[in-house]
Amino acid sequence: MTLRDGRIPPSAGTEHLLEYALVGDKVLPEVLVGIEDSVITHVTTELVCTESGTGPDGRSDPVERVAGLTLPALANCHSHAFHRALRGRTQTDRGTFWTWREQMYAVAARLTPDSYYELARQTYAEMVATGIGAVGEFHYLHHQPDGTPYDDPNAMGRALLAAADDAGIRIRLLDTCYLAAGIGAAPEGAQVRFSDGDATRWADRVAAFDDDRVGVAIHSVRAVPRKALGVVAEVAAGRPLHVHLSEQVAENEACVAAYGLTPTQLLAEEGVLGPDTTLVHATHLTATDISLIGDARAHVCFCPTTERDLADGIGPSRALHDTGARLTLGSDSHAVIDLFEEMRGVEMHERLHTQQRGHWSAAELLAAATTTGHASLGFADAGRIAVGQHADLRVLGLESWRLRGTSATPESVVFAATGADVVGELR
Amino acid sequence: MTLRDGRIPPSAGTEHLLEYALVGDKVLPEVLVGIEDSVITHVTTELVCTESGTGPDGRSDPVERVAGLTLPALANCHSHAFHRALRGRTQTDRGTFWTWREQMYAVAARLTPDSYYELARQTYAEMVATGIGAVGEFHYLHHQPDGTPYDDPNAMGRALLAAADDAGIRIRLLDTCYLAAGIGAAPEGAQVRFSDGDATRWADRVAAFDDDRVGVAIHSVRAVPRKALGVVAEVAAGRPLHVHLSEQVAENEACVAAYGLTPTQLLAEEGVLGPDTTLVHATHLTATDISLIGDARAHVCFCPTTERDLADGIGPSRALHDTGARLTLGSDSHAVIDLFEEMRGVEMHERLHTQQRGHWSAAELLAAATTTGHASLGFADAGRIAVGQHADLRVLGLESWRLRGTSATPESVVFAATGADVVGELR
Repeated sequence: MTLRDGRIPPSAGTEHLLEYALVGDKVLPEVLVGIEDSVITHVTTELVCTESGTGPDGRSDPVERVAGLTLPALANCHSHAFHRALRGRTQTDRGTFWTWREQMYAVAARLTPDSYYELARQTYAEMVATGIGAVGEFHYLHHQPDGTPYDDPNAMGRALLAAADDAGIRIRLLDTCYLAAGIGAAPEGAQVRFSDGDATRWADRVAAFDDDRVGVAIHSVRAVPRKALGVVAEVAAGRPLHVHLSEQVAENEACVAAYGLTPTQLLAEEGVLGPDTTLVHATHLTATDISLIGDARAHVCFCPTTERDLADGIGPSRALHDTGARLTLGSDSHAVIDLFEEMRGVEMHERLHTQQRGHWSAAELLAAATTTGHASLGFADAGRIAVGQHADLRVLGLESWRLRGTSATPESVVFAATGADVVGELR
Repeated sequence: MTLRDGRIPPSAGTEHLLEYALVGDKVLPEVLVGIEDSVITHVTTELVCTESGTGPDGRSDPVERVAGLTLPALANCHSHAFHRALRGRTQTDRGTFWTWREQMYAVAARLTPDSYYELARQTYAEMVATGIGAVGEFHYLHHQPDGTPYDDPNAMGRALLAAADDAGIRIRLLDTCYLAAGIGAAPEGAQVRFSDGDATRWADRVAAFDDDRVGVAIHSVRAVPRKALGVVAEVAAGRPLHVHLSEQVAENEACVAAYGLTPTQLLAEEGVLGPDTTLVHATHLTATDISLIGDARAHVCFCPTTERDLADGIGPSRALHDTGARLTLGSDSHAVIDLFEEMRGVEMHERLHTQQRGHWSAAELLAAATTTGHASLGFADAGRIAVGQHADLRVLGLESWRLRGTSATPESVVFAATGADVVGELR
């Protein structure tokens, strides 16, 4: 069998012979994949190589050989695209999540639909280049700086959809309900851009969006009053519903003071927890909270590089998994955009916390970044190299300084690769 | 002034106009640097640009323009070169530092001077490519597998020196005294390769080495009996002396049980602490330990990517600094070789531990990775862009996905760059 070498991916509609590929939870050598019209048409993992000049299984069609280790493109389940502008710029002086938020609001106050588009397009292009094929954009920057809607009240959201199209990434636009500065407090400063006034007007704007890529989000129990939580859950109606949950101890304290319930308990009582729900961060939880989330079979989205950057703390990822919750990952503030760092970050933070190794296997972390991540964004057709799946694959070069000399295994991908090792894509 | 663009560094003996450079603790634009015979001959930071065709200050010599941000090459103060073979391979199953050590010993048992050279040469080449100019190699793999010395009893150490020469990195070979499996226990298994039998024979072998790149090390208070500690300190005689300290709680417990002293107290009593001493890890310390280390003005070497990989825990980096200790960094087990990750890891681990940001400034972390690091290796002539310093500089490209759109500041270097952003070198 004579094959051509080359890292540049061939055009669609052809067969690709992958040097190594992640199939299920294993890395296999010599995997033949067919792609047509952006769908994987066949996957052959036990090839019979025949005489020179013919293809696998004796066919004479030439196939494109792809050197390296091919993965399904990853799912980045929590993004605030415009935070990318803050990279490196918030790393001075002491402070907390709350002082960092002031700097983030200063950027939020300045954006227009045009500059929002431009910033998001570059952020999404960075994601595509570093291995990501789908993004959950947690979008709350809805209105003009004084709170007046744009002529098209969804102008900012449409800017994000256009940015994703132009960068070549699938998007789930999580249109976020954001109504309050805190429990019982009106929006202030940059927050007036975020608020639709009440849940009904938020729902009306979402209904007018009319794009099947739109999902919904509750910013947090700080920013959405109790009576509005159920409205959002009802509008979701089976679409992905994402919520920031217990990222900071102060949120928990305010919630308990106002309602006598933890944020998780409040969401449970208001019907927000379920298998289509993704709880972002889930850092400071009680044992009861963990059981409620697990029993609901909800997704949780950990964002380790942001959670360490913002000094949030270390969430109970494994305990959540063990009670039934399903782990996904996000780069959130984009201080770093590298889902490989997020994968190993989950395990590394557990190691720092417990002084034990081996909480998460590499295969489990890869599942979080691929199939489970896509599921939490409502893309059940992506995240695996399997027949019928959406074809969006990324190729890791095995000759980089980081991967050279390692074996082609899930462990090397999760614990040694970075986004800089992505050398090609197949669609 | 007409200048040529180009990322490929020019040859030595010329002037370089650096687009941006780290000078002192600031990043400055348009820095003119002259290099001759591997020494920096002049540094001009306030250039007067004159008419087209002439150089800065009116001279007509062309200068080589270097796009990007130029740094002094970094110092990697703690390396076990052969651990690079384990990358990705130890990330299965549960366990601790101690179970990981079994896997590491299996590699140690197989090495010969030739394979040790080859592995180290590749490891050091990865360091050079990712921004590192000097390495402290903590070397204890002295003898044949059955403990018999090689014909040249320093054959293994010389293999490391040759590897460093061939990779183009400066080395401080920290010849390590390793005599026991634990307090009062004879070496066993792979450890018989490490032991010289007693401190006198270790000292005799070091004396026979006769190479001014040789420093010394005490493996740990586990592996060196109390009465031998002072012997090593005496042999050091002002050369760099490195020691693994309190990486694991079990070490502390064994030391207190045997001597009624913490490892730090024991080192202090035996005269090991001083300004030429570097304490590696320093993870599990008492307040008294911290004061003893600070009062001695000793160096500490943190290795955050290894310390999280091995589930060691989070050491008190800032408290040590605040009492007078001087921070340096190392990649240790080489699960990751990226000093940029180590720099930010120190701060990120403090954030995870305290839920506060801003313990270490970017400038302080850069100092740890440059001047202080070189000082702890006995290379006082390196680590700064300044007249008379050893000329070994690295250039960060500012157009990578990670650095694009950030400002040219110490904060961007420390919190956004990776080893993959190193695009050139100047020597």
